[in-house]
Amino acid sequence: MSSTVSAELPDPIAKGLLPEGFRDRLPPRAEAAVNLEQAMMAAIRPHGYERVAPPLAEFEESLVTRLAGAETQDLLRLIDPLSQRTIALRPDMTAQVGRIAATRLGHRPRPLRLAYAGPVLRVRKPQVGATREALQLGAELIGSDHVRAVEEILTIALEALAATGAKDISVDLTLPSLVGELAEGPWPVADLPAVRNALDGKDHAQLRAAGGTAYAPLIEAAGPAGEALAALRSANMGEAFCARLDAAERLAATASRFGSVSLDPTERLGFEYQTWAGFSLYAGGAPAEIGRGGTYTIRHPDGHEEAAAGFSLYVDPLVEAGLGIGASRRIFLPLGTADGIAQRLRTEGWVAVAALFEEDSPEANACTYIWDGEARPL
Amino acid sequence: MSSTVSAELPDPIAKGLLPEGFRDRLPPRAEAAVNLEQAMMAAIRPHGYERVAPPLAEFEESLVTRLAGAETQDLLRLIDPLSQRTIALRPDMTAQVGRIAATRLGHRPRPLRLAYAGPVLRVRKPQVGATREALQLGAELIGSDHVRAVEEILTIALEALAATGAKDISVDLTLPSLVGELAEGPWPVADLPAVRNALDGKDHAQLRAAGGTAYAPLIEAAGPAGEALAALRSANMGEAFCARLDAAERLAATASRFGSVSLDPTERLGFEYQTWAGFSLYAGGAPAEIGRGGTYTIRHPDGHEEAAAGFSLYVDPLVEAGLGIGASRRIFLPLGTADGIAQRLRTEGWVAVAALFEEDSPEANACTYIWDGEARPL
Repeated sequence: MSSTVSAELPDPIAKGLLPEGFRDRLPPRAEAAVNLEQAMMAAIRPHGYERVAPPLAEFEESLVTRLAGAETQDLLRLIDPLSQRTIALRPDMTAQVGRIAATRLGHRPRPLRLAYAGPVLRVRKPQVGATREALQLGAELIGSDHVRAVEEILTIALEALAATGAKDISVDLTLPSLVGELAEGPWPVADLPAVRNALDGKDHAQLRAAGGTAYAPLIEAAGPAGEALAALRSANMGEAFCARLDAAERLAATASRFGSVSLDPTERLGFEYQTWAGFSLYAGGAPAEIGRGGTYTIRHPDGHEEAAAGFSLYVDPLVEAGLGIGASRRIFLPLGTADGIAQRLRTEGWVAVAALFEEDSPEANACTYIWDGEARPL
Repeated sequence: MSSTVSAELPDPIAKGLLPEGFRDRLPPRAEAAVNLEQAMMAAIRPHGYERVAPPLAEFEESLVTRLAGAETQDLLRLIDPLSQRTIALRPDMTAQVGRIAATRLGHRPRPLRLAYAGPVLRVRKPQVGATREALQLGAELIGSDHVRAVEEILTIALEALAATGAKDISVDLTLPSLVGELAEGPWPVADLPAVRNALDGKDHAQLRAAGGTAYAPLIEAAGPAGEALAALRSANMGEAFCARLDAAERLAATASRFGSVSLDPTERLGFEYQTWAGFSLYAGGAPAEIGRGGTYTIRHPDGHEEAAAGFSLYVDPLVEAGLGIGASRRIFLPLGTADGIAQRLRTEGWVAVAALFEEDSPEANACTYIWDGEARPL
């Protein structure tokens, strides 16, 4: 081993510091993240979702205008030296998949089922302890926002989550467009933003002051899905909304096969572009939401809009929960072990580490077995 | 399906155009890329290489100063709004893995075996038809540049390539530091850069003009490895270089188990930071080099240097060669098919697409089977 001395690197580069909010995944967590991604994608694929892989960077407008109702968000932007145009790193892949569905795969029959997985980059950490780079994956069913489409999407999201070994799964349902539709229909209000703010805070006094007393039942109707739906049914929204509540009940029934289900009909944080249905997924031990989904609307080049349903899941909270770490038996092969032995052991599922020098040891290579004519535990 | 008309999106965003040099991977190539990545990582892992996952962006200095001899290169840079510092997107992961080995895993015994896979981003396309975003993977053996270390690395790189189903594999060996070492030893020259340029062009006249006549045998000694090594052995480099040629011969023998092997002792393009050994890998049908590797030197925080050997492979040329596309039988499940049937088929390896509406058809879902009490081919 050669080891010489050269000029020192500048600090903090020498110490290997990373920009704020970025981090390395080290063993065994890097492998765990990959294992979890593969387990979830393997659960999605047999439902007929074909994989697409959009690029990490796009024109900024592409990332923010493709989904109807999506709000402008902070993006990591740069001037591309090649094209001399501003490009942005994707904070989310759903809009990119929407672009692909609306343009390159615009000719394909609907419903179109697409899946994806890859890193996304954010300007800020979404919550304390999180990173600005996240591994996102998901599935989008393009061409319908029918309750059967959402049932399929919700089922696949939960099957994918269950495939990771996650325990204590829970689902929060929401109806993102409900308040706006009630305001345009049976429960008109003068100041809708003020009513929404009062509902966000579940504040009855503020709701009355905003002229939204009619909406009070929506505050009460938040909690376990069965009770919440019963409360909504007695809230006199009118017959036009019965079908909506029937649909929500079907989604609650679907979700209840995997875990506990709650409903908050006014929750809107993080559902800026979702239409009638939204859901968030949680698992025991994970420090944050695992993912979310629902119905939304894709804008096509000619201006027409297309309904869709989909979900995104994030791998990191599951890694934090300790999931995905595979067991592997590591065996040390002393110098001179025949190639055939090494190959056979690797085929049989062993991690077989070959010595390079006489002084190499099983311990330094984290091996708990050694080959001496047979696999001998240490 | 809801379909309404809204304001048109600006052109060329509406048409879904991407910045120059970026592209979407569509079905079935997106899936193929993942299949190839997984096949190669599955070949690396049982040799004891533990996975690490550095971030997509780092401080610029970190990406260019970690490997001794690495040249400054064009990077995609941005001002990070959070830290107000310039960060850069990685064009390569080897320097990042070197950083991890030198800092966070500096305490781990050597040799340290690390593996990685992920996207890298370049300012320019590396060749015509290529993209600026590439999927890179590889393995690094840190703590030794002994010929046994390079044999291990070369073997794993070739096993990984063979695991993709690649045919007509070929290996080009090079000895990146040889010319510089000869110039400091038996074959001194006044103008080394001029000699290197003449060798790059294999130009005897230019070589004589540069005062490098002694180096003429190196131009002759390029070609099939056996002949090239015989020519080098008769070139009177002196005894000090015999061990080097013995080592090259061992690498040629290792590579010859997988395909044809050539040697060009003066090739240096793309081997800017490699030391005594370098190699490039090719496969039939792939429009570009699949990857490269060799020995190099990692700079530690305290200034000391550590020898290492490793390789990187790129997935895209293998996708271009038509590899990685898995066969899957797609079956259409008419409305009303029991959940249990769908689950059983998916467990058995079918891609089973559930109808959402009466008008859905097997053809629109690219299915070649339909379920009608049994899996019936169409």
